[in-house]
Amino acid sequence: MKIGILGTGMVGTTIGSKLVHLGHEVMIGSRTADNAKAMEWIKDKGPHAQHGTFADAAAYGIIIFNCTSGGASLEALKMTGAENLAGKILIDLANPLDFSKGMPPSLIPSLSNTTSLGEEIQKAFPEAKVVKTLNTMSCNLMVNSTGVAGDHDIFVCGNDEGAKDHVKALLEADFGWKSIIDLGDITGARGTEMILPLWVRLYGVNQSPNFNFKIVK
Amino acid sequence: MKIGILGTGMVGTTIGSKLVHLGHEVMIGSRTADNAKAMEWIKDKGPHAQHGTFADAAAYGIIIFNCTSGGASLEALKMTGAENLAGKILIDLANPLDFSKGMPPSLIPSLSNTTSLGEEIQKAFPEAKVVKTLNTMSCNLMVNSTGVAGDHDIFVCGNDEGAKDHVKALLEADFGWKSIIDLGDITGARGTEMILPLWVRLYGVNQSPNFNFKIVK
Repeated sequence: MKIGILGTGMVGTTIGSKLVHLGHEVMIGSRTADNAKAMEWIKDKGPHAQHGTFADAAAYGIIIFNCTSGGASLEALKMTGAENLAGKILIDLANPLDFSKGMPPSLIPSLSNTTSLGEEIQKAFPEAKVVKTLNTMSCNLMVNSTGVAGDHDIFVCGNDEGAKDHVKALLEADFGWKSIIDLGDITGARGTEMILPLWVRLYGVNQSPNFNFKIVK
Repeated sequence: MKIGILGTGMVGTTIGSKLVHLGHEVMIGSRTADNAKAMEWIKDKGPHAQHGTFADAAAYGIIIFNCTSGGASLEALKMTGAENLAGKILIDLANPLDFSKGMPPSLIPSLSNTTSLGEEIQKAFPEAKVVKTLNTMSCNLMVNSTGVAGDHDIFVCGNDEGAKDHVKALLEADFGWKSIIDLGDITGARGTEMILPLWVRLYGVNQSPNFNFKIVK
């Protein structure tokens, strides 16, 4: 499948590498077409890995991953262009972390609590099918659910049921996720984005990002 | 042990009933000494259950549970009086839920994100030893960790190590908690209070409050 990835940081390249490894065709996008990290990333990936601008990557993909940093996502998506996102599944895994008020980070007030980054992206790009998922764990775990022992959960939410079904199938087939909890419409992103302040503290306690949440009933 | 409970709602009476059942001496406090719910609650509890004002209950207890609703906690504690809380362990299990902006609730902005209810209580009552715990689950589960199957976790945070040790011992001995995660100082309350928006959505998905979080490593 042709997949566009927005963002050349650790999350974007980790997702991209996994998808190329699985045989998908991936274009990774950034602000400029000659982004050094993107050019470095494609080097050993073969013909199925390409790079371009945000707009190039979104135009290329059938599914788009938003792997830009949360505070910059809306601007990056504006550069991407609504026309390149229309009708497509936009998997949003960014978190609106606010590093301006010290560590560990808080959340950007205008993107949390009574709204969320996922919701604001959906509002700004109404023709995209935004699915929020993967944002509650480290990137190594995102693409490899067996990275921690035992059962654990991933959350999915979004307004388009068909898009969510598609994303659930991808999470299962490509990333090995077995237990997927559907939180309903995109407002569920408020819940999953707001567990980041606990996540960063658990990271401190565990001295490792290699953990995940399990809902026990 | 003599225990004071602030708040006569479902949380306060559930905690109080469990503690009386275990042989503790409990005074449940409210705004007025003749609170109807408190008078109803003591009826079948025997001599170890008493009721009074917030101030009476705090003066009586060695350990105090704040079971008032989060939005009213600071005011209730002001009525309780700093002199009745000084030097005591104050277990804060309230959440700063904001029901004014529709359902499911958000968090009160002035008590979340860059601060928390737990922190604001500690600031307002510096001589109390505030320990935040028990706020991430339904009240039936608080007092009976075997209410869901398998392993699951409870979070504790606070500035006073001795107070935390005392609370951990109580959680273990009285409420059956086996896996207690210490998040460090009271700023950890930002993390645990901010998972409530996810909790309320999971309540909707599960159609039951009978679930809890497990951190899988």
